Amino acid sequence: MNEHLKVAQMGLGPIGLECLKALAEAPWAQVVGAVDIDPAKCGADLAVLIGQKALRGLRVCASPEELKQSPEIIFHTAVSRFKDAYEQLEALARRGINVVSSCEELVFPSLRQPRLAQRLDALCRKTGARVVGTGVNPGFVMDVLPVCLGGVVRDIRAIQVERIVDASTRREPLQRKIGSGQPPAQFRRLLRSGRAGHAGLAESLALIAHALNWKTVRIVESANPVVAKRNIRTRYFSVIKGQTCGLHQRVVATTATGCRILLDLKMYLGAENPRDIVRIKGNPPLDLVMQGGVAGDQATVAALVNTARRLMKAPPGLALLTDLPMA
Amino acid sequence: MNEHLKVAQMGLGPIGLECLKALAEAPWAQVVGAVDIDPAKCGADLAVLIGQKALRGLRVCASPEELKQSPEIIFHTAVSRFKDAYEQLEALARRGINVVSSCEELVFPSLRQPRLAQRLDALCRKTGARVVGTGVNPGFVMDVLPVCLGGVVRDIRAIQVERIVDASTRREPLQRKIGSGQPPAQFRRLLRSGRAGHAGLAESLALIAHALNWKTVRIVESANPVVAKRNIRTRYFSVIKGQTCGLHQRVVATTATGCRILLDLKMYLGAENPRDIVRIKGNPPLDLVMQGGVAGDQATVAALVNTARRLMKAPPGLALLTDLPMA
Repeated sequence: MNEHLKVAQMGLGPIGLECLKALAEAPWAQVVGAVDIDPAKCGADLAVLIGQKALRGLRVCASPEELKQSPEIIFHTAVSRFKDAYEQLEALARRGINVVSSCEELVFPSLRQPRLAQRLDALCRKTGARVVGTGVNPGFVMDVLPVCLGGVVRDIRAIQVERIVDASTRREPLQRKIGSGQPPAQFRRLLRSGRAGHAGLAESLALIAHALNWKTVRIVESANPVVAKRNIRTRYFSVIKGQTCGLHQRVVATTATGCRILLDLKMYLGAENPRDIVRIKGNPPLDLVMQGGVAGDQATVAALVNTARRLMKAPPGLALLTDLPMA
Repeated sequence: MNEHLKVAQMGLGPIGLECLKALAEAPWAQVVGAVDIDPAKCGADLAVLIGQKALRGLRVCASPEELKQSPEIIFHTAVSRFKDAYEQLEALARRGINVVSSCEELVFPSLRQPRLAQRLDALCRKTGARVVGTGVNPGFVMDVLPVCLGGVVRDIRAIQVERIVDASTRREPLQRKIGSGQPPAQFRRLLRSGRAGHAGLAESLALIAHALNWKTVRIVESANPVVAKRNIRTRYFSVIKGQTCGLHQRVVATTATGCRILLDLKMYLGAENPRDIVRIKGNPPLDLVMQGGVAGDQATVAALVNTARRLMKAPPGLALLTDLPMA
């Protein structure tokens, strides 16, 4: 690709700002602007915002329509639920703008919103837009990586992924999200009601099942607080022994023939020996360990930026990561 | 895909026979025949050859032209050098037959044979055929896997892959290939002259460099015997202390800006702690270990069989694995 792709960033939280920085440095990209709905951010100079002189004169807009130049791709880091992202995505797709999004549910949007997914896909095919959800989890460790590994295994009977994240090394919103400092009973209620927890775990499972052409019988999810066994202090939180210091989430599915996918995610403050493990039962069996685990925030930005040019090679539509060429 | 793909196997060595078995069991495939140039194998009943009653009546042909039904895909497990495979591949492509091949150099055919690669690609585009080279090494551990991992890393500065194979658990031809039992000086001469050694290591490196869009300055290869430190006996070979029990091959390349790819392969009888290691220097850094390593023979068959339907989704041409959708 010799031409520069015109890109814009939508959503200027911590991930969005990092993504914008990465785009400003990418030799194949030309940043044409950034968008955030927060009035406090609107009008800010991008050069000041991320310390990149090259972006001087570009200011944060309140909506993509206000961008002076229309981007070919928008990097969308705004919400976790596909339902909540839908209006924004539809407006972009309608204008034929391609979208790479960190929206967790967009990794497999038809799991929870089959109608919206179908509608967005149809719109994209009409306007020529491409939309895809990506990230590190969901989007890599617990879905794309096991699917890639499955490429050299026959007769797969089970896929098991275990991810242990030491949340004390992560950004403030993530430490908050995992319930740090909350009474366990209270956080359990939030988890049960779906108002807390890690989004996208079931989507990872659905993406694996789809890639393997498995019809899963039932997806069972569980989510529980991890309780601090000692007092923990991070840059952002102080957690007393007995309070919540993180979460343990699992999702399991089986097929009619007894094949099984199990995804197990532990994210808590002070987790020892953080790592990602992928085990595949099949011929041959595989047993992979990622020492230290794939660091979430940086890897998410990398996933967003690296997915863009792969997406441009795909036909228009609402794509899955496993539909895209690898490089 | 609801329709059966008509498939045939070309080359009935150990890998070819296993591949034929796997195809006979694949729900999406209909085996229409098998080909081997060895007159001793021609005419053999496939059902007897691999113990699969369903193939009764199909006999080994001396050439693809003799197959009673034309296959949509041929699984080609015949030679390691692209140059040696070329005539066979050209004849298939001319008839519009798609090919998934274990030919090692076909993983990145333009490295050694840019003209032949271009010619085959042009022919494929004309006839609608798709051709791809795949396998476990080359084709996965030392190329596709690091490329996949690179998807969540920014600013990659180095990729290092180390593969240690205990060859005593592998098939006879592989134990022979690594020089088992030869005087080290003699095997070193064979390695130096290119008449021995593992094919495809530089191709793996070239595929990584291509996927990262890196222009490598120089590719440096080395290959040396591993000398037995004790007497070793396998099912096929007896190696006395001081004789060759395997090989150690490396390939390194750097870019003008100092980025680096290093692939290090040790295959020897009795190798302790066999494993595959992938390390990526970048943001974030990654450090992956595949315990036990990806078992070569079974994984190669899996790679061949699993690549077929991915290939069918690609446009006609001579494809690279990284061009194909992942699933």
